[in-house]
Amino acid sequence: MKPVKVGLCGLGTVGSGTFNLLTRNVSDINARAGIEIEISQIGARRDNPDCDTSAANLSRDIFDVVNNPEIDVVVELIGGTTVAKDLVVQAIANGKHVVTANKALIAEFGNDIFAAAADKGVVVAYEAAVAGGIPIIKALREGLAANRIEWLAGIINGTGNFILTEMKDKGRDFADVLKEAQDLGYAEADPTFDVEGIDAAHKLVILASLAFAMPLQYDKVFCEGISAIQPIDVQYADELGYRIKHLGVARRHQDGIELRVHPTLIPQKRLIANVDGVMNSVLVQGDGVGPTLYYGAGAGGEPTASAIIADVVDIARSIANGGKGQGAQALGYIPEHLVNHPIVPIEEVETTSYLRMSALDQAGVMNKITQILSSVGASIEALIQKEPQSSGQDHVDIALLTNRVKEKQINQALLEIEALEAISGKVSRIRVESLG
Amino acid sequence: MKPVKVGLCGLGTVGSGTFNLLTRNVSDINARAGIEIEISQIGARRDNPDCDTSAANLSRDIFDVVNNPEIDVVVELIGGTTVAKDLVVQAIANGKHVVTANKALIAEFGNDIFAAAADKGVVVAYEAAVAGGIPIIKALREGLAANRIEWLAGIINGTGNFILTEMKDKGRDFADVLKEAQDLGYAEADPTFDVEGIDAAHKLVILASLAFAMPLQYDKVFCEGISAIQPIDVQYADELGYRIKHLGVARRHQDGIELRVHPTLIPQKRLIANVDGVMNSVLVQGDGVGPTLYYGAGAGGEPTASAIIADVVDIARSIANGGKGQGAQALGYIPEHLVNHPIVPIEEVETTSYLRMSALDQAGVMNKITQILSSVGASIEALIQKEPQSSGQDHVDIALLTNRVKEKQINQALLEIEALEAISGKVSRIRVESLG
Repeated sequence: MKPVKVGLCGLGTVGSGTFNLLTRNVSDINARAGIEIEISQIGARRDNPDCDTSAANLSRDIFDVVNNPEIDVVVELIGGTTVAKDLVVQAIANGKHVVTANKALIAEFGNDIFAAAADKGVVVAYEAAVAGGIPIIKALREGLAANRIEWLAGIINGTGNFILTEMKDKGRDFADVLKEAQDLGYAEADPTFDVEGIDAAHKLVILASLAFAMPLQYDKVFCEGISAIQPIDVQYADELGYRIKHLGVARRHQDGIELRVHPTLIPQKRLIANVDGVMNSVLVQGDGVGPTLYYGAGAGGEPTASAIIADVVDIARSIANGGKGQGAQALGYIPEHLVNHPIVPIEEVETTSYLRMSALDQAGVMNKITQILSSVGASIEALIQKEPQSSGQDHVDIALLTNRVKEKQINQALLEIEALEAISGKVSRIRVESLG
Repeated sequence: MKPVKVGLCGLGTVGSGTFNLLTRNVSDINARAGIEIEISQIGARRDNPDCDTSAANLSRDIFDVVNNPEIDVVVELIGGTTVAKDLVVQAIANGKHVVTANKALIAEFGNDIFAAAADKGVVVAYEAAVAGGIPIIKALREGLAANRIEWLAGIINGTGNFILTEMKDKGRDFADVLKEAQDLGYAEADPTFDVEGIDAAHKLVILASLAFAMPLQYDKVFCEGISAIQPIDVQYADELGYRIKHLGVARRHQDGIELRVHPTLIPQKRLIANVDGVMNSVLVQGDGVGPTLYYGAGAGGEPTASAIIADVVDIARSIANGGKGQGAQALGYIPEHLVNHPIVPIEEVETTSYLRMSALDQAGVMNKITQILSSVGASIEALIQKEPQSSGQDHVDIALLTNRVKEKQINQALLEIEALEAISGKVSRIRVESLG
């Protein structure tokens, strides 16, 4: 059989990781695929000292790769949604399979890209786009194919998890750890994508589409980052038996699908509450299988390369078996089965809430707070009230957990609590997920 | 396209779970497969009140199913290695794909079965044979295909994990919890397969073959169960910062492959140390991806059915794409690439050891123990020595952790320590894995 010819576009961290991992393990990888896989061309604007491409067929124009008639599979690792999109569109038009790690491209333009690929009979594979080296796309699309997925929840941004882990372990504050993450290369110079939840939202919308048989609806994700989390919240959460994690949550609901990314209190005893540092993890609840969890490195050169190459091997195996590269459909279902389920507005989402406020240390304040909560249908399930830390201090911290009520009810209560004279400043609110 | 016709053999817990899950989610499952999947015949000696098969084509002779020319895929859920083996062999001879949950059959007879299937161009799929609903076969064979696997370690027997969890949480003893597990239906009336590690050995040898590209070598697995674990060991392990889990461990070593099933101390901070109850989990270390972990229900009707149906969907997807049902090779590699790697004898395996002994409470005893350990090249890395619990007691417990030394060295030391007059009875030894 003639080899499967791969064209690698982009030679950054993931590109060089892919080149190195495929080169190092080529004998095993070919024996797994049942056919030879070779990197026939590389398109990159500059060399990368982390990999030796001196023997490779290297072009400075990435479009040389997609226009090379020899290439069977284009691996897109340049990132972004401008040139990368043009590249992928051109590759599909040229009848080539595409493997990509580009979560933004899939989340925002996946519907059109998948439709174009289906028209041309080629595959667009994107295991590396979510949770790096964890084979979570494959798990949802194939391993759990028998299940009606009820919900999933994931720690799907490593930078955010690193920051929250440092805040917990060392009591450091957000800005301080963010700076370290930037120095370590975990966070970009512009950290918005990571800390404001945009990166996690890109990944969540992909997982949700696979789980619930719907087209990608990136613009519908409710998105809140971790920049408002205070060390004191991490500490109170701990005292209440919880950890704070930045989660993507997608849940099937009678009125539609919940699709939200935000900081979350999780009971400490849950495995996912103990996923620390830059690691990622996704918890999936199926009606047949029950809960399953997947854990691994969510970023980095070779972990992401592991997923890229797995996709290439899938395509190669199909070709080795006399097929055309195809396996599962792009979103796991035949396109006609996909339904634009309504996304539940965040105001209608029901969760437990953690609330922290600074209250005047005087009789009757707690009573007023309880009354306000009660007026919106909320009750207090757990409470921490600290004594004033010094005799000159007239305000004390109150941290509490409510029962499950709708977001709009808690929002109403927050407005009223913040309007109390005895309350100083804003009330901090973090949603709670039991994940049980 | 004409439907993929499934014949279900066996209607026990997993058989009825498969029937129910496939029936309940048939619309989603068909939309995932891209082709209709139907249960065309059931072979079962008796009905199962847990599923309504009144509308099904049911035969009391399971061989009717494998000899039915209409059937494309035979699902073997009768268990054991006698009739089940004949059934699978006949199904293959008749040119049918086979999906099975039968770990003993695959572990003991898989090499011949896979060869026969390859000759006939059919698939034998067995995701359900290891770790129930966790898609671990798919992860090793496909998701991690880019990696050279360095080691893997799994909690792959739910009954054993349930017993150890109860011993830890409630201080109960082995026999007491085993009885409860039997009453709850977790353990068979003959619990040997579960508590002596045989079931775990079956699963481990399958995982190891997928990880290290070798034929199944079931007779080479070192196997030790949990029946000798005492509540006091669980307690001392906790004091030393560890949990006791029954693990299957497979590790690539310069002299071959380590293949062993035994109770193990694992640092409490590892995620897998916190997998409790009947749940299973497998930790896999790849050279590219680093550590990845998979968690879920390791047994039960619908969790196992989830894996069975996933295998059926894989076959159906290939057929829907114009293929012949094939995906990855049975053991993940083309057969010519498989090598009978030597299995490292347990005496040559190097681990840290936990040792517990009852010693006469007198001066010089600890010195003698230290000298014996030192004479075989072992040192003490951590130690718990308790005061006598009552004034009449002349023996005290000593629990210690050694450094990493070969098994044969520790065995020599144990012989010498047990020969000391000051030591009463046998020394308990449990291997330690840091899994870091």
